[in-house]
Amino acid sequence: MILTSSLVDIATVIVLLHADDARQIGVREGDRVTIFNTPKGTSVRAPVVITETLISPGHVTISSGVNKRLQITDGDSVEIRASSRPASIEFIRKKMDGGRLSREETAQIVEDMTKEVLSPSEITAYITAAYINGLDMDEVESLTREMVASGDRLTFNTRPIVDKHSIGGVPGNKITLLVVPVIAASGLLIPKTSSRAITGAGGTADLMEALAPVTFTVQEIQQMTLKAGGVIVWGGATNIAPADDMIITYEYPLKIDARGQMLASIMAKKMAVGSDTCVIDIPVGPGTKIPDEAEGRVLAGELIELGRRLGIRVECAITYGGAPVGRNIGVNLEVAEALRILEGDTGPNSLMQKSVALAGMALEMTGKTAYGFGAEAAMELIRNGKALAKMKEIIAVQGGDPKITSSDLVFGSNVFDVPAPNDGYVVAVKNRELINIARTAGSPADHGAGLHLHKKPGEAVKKGEPILTIYAERGWRLQRAIEEARVSMPVVVEGMLLDRVPPVRRVA
Amino acid sequence: MILTSSLVDIATVIVLLHADDARQIGVREGDRVTIFNTPKGTSVRAPVVITETLISPGHVTISSGVNKRLQITDGDSVEIRASSRPASIEFIRKKMDGGRLSREETAQIVEDMTKEVLSPSEITAYITAAYINGLDMDEVESLTREMVASGDRLTFNTRPIVDKHSIGGVPGNKITLLVVPVIAASGLLIPKTSSRAITGAGGTADLMEALAPVTFTVQEIQQMTLKAGGVIVWGGATNIAPADDMIITYEYPLKIDARGQMLASIMAKKMAVGSDTCVIDIPVGPGTKIPDEAEGRVLAGELIELGRRLGIRVECAITYGGAPVGRNIGVNLEVAEALRILEGDTGPNSLMQKSVALAGMALEMTGKTAYGFGAEAAMELIRNGKALAKMKEIIAVQGGDPKITSSDLVFGSNVFDVPAPNDGYVVAVKNRELINIARTAGSPADHGAGLHLHKKPGEAVKKGEPILTIYAERGWRLQRAIEEARVSMPVVVEGMLLDRVPPVRRVA
Repeated sequence: MILTSSLVDIATVIVLLHADDARQIGVREGDRVTIFNTPKGTSVRAPVVITETLISPGHVTISSGVNKRLQITDGDSVEIRASSRPASIEFIRKKMDGGRLSREETAQIVEDMTKEVLSPSEITAYITAAYINGLDMDEVESLTREMVASGDRLTFNTRPIVDKHSIGGVPGNKITLLVVPVIAASGLLIPKTSSRAITGAGGTADLMEALAPVTFTVQEIQQMTLKAGGVIVWGGATNIAPADDMIITYEYPLKIDARGQMLASIMAKKMAVGSDTCVIDIPVGPGTKIPDEAEGRVLAGELIELGRRLGIRVECAITYGGAPVGRNIGVNLEVAEALRILEGDTGPNSLMQKSVALAGMALEMTGKTAYGFGAEAAMELIRNGKALAKMKEIIAVQGGDPKITSSDLVFGSNVFDVPAPNDGYVVAVKNRELINIARTAGSPADHGAGLHLHKKPGEAVKKGEPILTIYAERGWRLQRAIEEARVSMPVVVEGMLLDRVPPVRRVA
Repeated sequence: MILTSSLVDIATVIVLLHADDARQIGVREGDRVTIFNTPKGTSVRAPVVITETLISPGHVTISSGVNKRLQITDGDSVEIRASSRPASIEFIRKKMDGGRLSREETAQIVEDMTKEVLSPSEITAYITAAYINGLDMDEVESLTREMVASGDRLTFNTRPIVDKHSIGGVPGNKITLLVVPVIAASGLLIPKTSSRAITGAGGTADLMEALAPVTFTVQEIQQMTLKAGGVIVWGGATNIAPADDMIITYEYPLKIDARGQMLASIMAKKMAVGSDTCVIDIPVGPGTKIPDEAEGRVLAGELIELGRRLGIRVECAITYGGAPVGRNIGVNLEVAEALRILEGDTGPNSLMQKSVALAGMALEMTGKTAYGFGAEAAMELIRNGKALAKMKEIIAVQGGDPKITSSDLVFGSNVFDVPAPNDGYVVAVKNRELINIARTAGSPADHGAGLHLHKKPGEAVKKGEPILTIYAERGWRLQRAIEEARVSMPVVVEGMLLDRVPPVRRVA
């Protein structure tokens, strides 16, 4: 990509001092100073960076990230004084040394983190220490409550408020597009905030954006939920649990997802939207975050206990995550697949089954149906068209066009069928490789990009028959995705070479 | 302090992208991009920071820290591509998960750290993981060797090359100013690099700077050592073991000093200057880094073993660190105290005793004297004036005035005697509090600031007699230091209240 450069403002919090001045003030790299903008009565406390060459003594460089609170004009004189270390650093040290943090200590860390008094390195030290030494359930509860307190909340006067969450890792998991309208159609309220794709081919917020805007304030989310019964919006645009977003940002480069922080992250978002009833989907199996059912049950137990402490009733569904949910991956492909079911395509498939199972659990937990009758009730709300009508209402309340149908969603015009290499049965599909092919084809940025899986595990296939169709909006992206499919062989047909090291280019 | 502000260049490595462009490129906050300056043929790989507001799509903000290698002009077009994660992040993860790092893995981490491919947060994650999970001796050896390989080295053709190190924490520890000239006067080579004050009242480099310049390249250090037999220079000005300096910088905000990294840090500096014979001073006792003699022996054993692996013969002196070495703290006060001994003031005192003991060990280890006769030989080199002559030679070779005497060193003209609060014996002095008073008085930036301790533990004192004299160059600094002495009561006379919580202002 060709971009125009400029050497200017930096959003990060940076205060740059000359080494001579730093010595006079008595601070070293990483120490805090307080900068005073006396005429405006503002001041900011921040860590310093020290240089011998970049500025001359008598000068200080201040980033926009600092100046949004300090509000100086370039060239202004400012007073700088050494400032004490934030108390939260002691608590981070305590966690590094294997200690347990009190509610107050966790609160101080979260506050100093969100106020940017802690530097990125110090936040990383906390996350690393919590990852290595673990957080017990008391610490997780404190962290969850402080994450909630760090941002905005929805406060409904009615009960129950339903929410739904899926632990990630499974491609094509578009069930929220079915679960939310079914639950809202039953008369329950479900203010669903979702994420965008991180490493996947499309997050639920990316999918919903093909139907309606997804960026709203918490006030708007609350009003829309009261009006339509449910919404599907982008959580990242709100100020819900910002401390959680920060932790996720700092975990990301290290590719860690510490259990305690993951529990707090999930439940903080539920608590902040005012939910008291929550269904959590835990996909297990190869290629997911949770390797097996036993691990899934442990996680379920932790989520239920944390929910109990927070006043949220939680039930978990351990689901099969070894293959995509449904057959489509990519924004328009997934949205079309979900809409087709709402429109009456009731043929048996994994997407339909999983969606009504999850929605049914919420209907049972809230007493809308007796236990054992939830899934059937959910299915009926789809069959009788009420879920489709509710989905159109949700699309309309979010500012989209309610007349949209599954056939309005356009797939990329550059198409390629990947043929089966031989006769046999599909014995496995590789989740990660399927996601990578969809991303290479352009998903989620190109809404028409993605793939359709013709064959899933257990299905028979004949040599030359298509096992996978790739869609792309741009020709060069299709070529790259085809190349990737040839190398990674995401659909394994019995008798095929399972893998080859190093990978070679072979005509599939 | 009043400084002039400007909103300009930042030394830190920062690449700022708009969220829309980041999505197109396929990177998240913390992911790497490679930026290409095609006309110049340069490129840089760096982590990205993502903003929605600070810049518009189509633009990228690049910090001076990146541009020193990229060399674009403001407004140039640059190409940006997603880049893979550095392999070293996997190795950091391995350490977080409790694994042991191979030599190659440590090498990759150190390389990516010094090339700034790793972000400050990632370096902190490594340091935190190494602190919590520890490094075994193989890992410490690898880290030491890689620290040495990360920078410049001195290579002497002769042996032995002596070096000396003190584990920090004891105020007034100016023994290097005596040990180096004694060893050089014996005919041995000692290229001593020292640090500036970090949390103390004056590092050895700060002290030596009162006598001569201390900033030199490794080539200059080598030439000066061959000429004068010894030097006392500032290690921070060289490119010796820069990876060690980086680790120390990132440890500092967390106030950690992990054992493995401390061992590597000490021995890397010795190995890089080409030393094969090393004497290490380990002060133990209250207020030092090492609480007791048993701990001191463990540390000594580790240093000796690490030295053996690196081809450096190490012997350690476990010394008493519960009180200052000598009686003066502060730059000119300490230098004058050391020079007076070289000039013939041979009255018994802890500074003299400790210096000849340490220097004597090196004389014995190198065979200059038989075992048991080193300290006496060192003492003789002071008595016969050879050490003073050598010190003048060292001052001259570093560009200072060799005619300087102890009486040329000026103490601050603002002086206050702290009187004893009652009759009795001094039962303790508080190291940390003494250092803080000297720092408050202006040390090390004000060379004339500091203090003289009239009474040390075990000595009798009469009420009203001075126990401490504070010197400052500036009146307001003296007042603050007096106030601090009154509150912290650094010299404990038998019968006195030992401490009071919360502290109150009392007339001492």
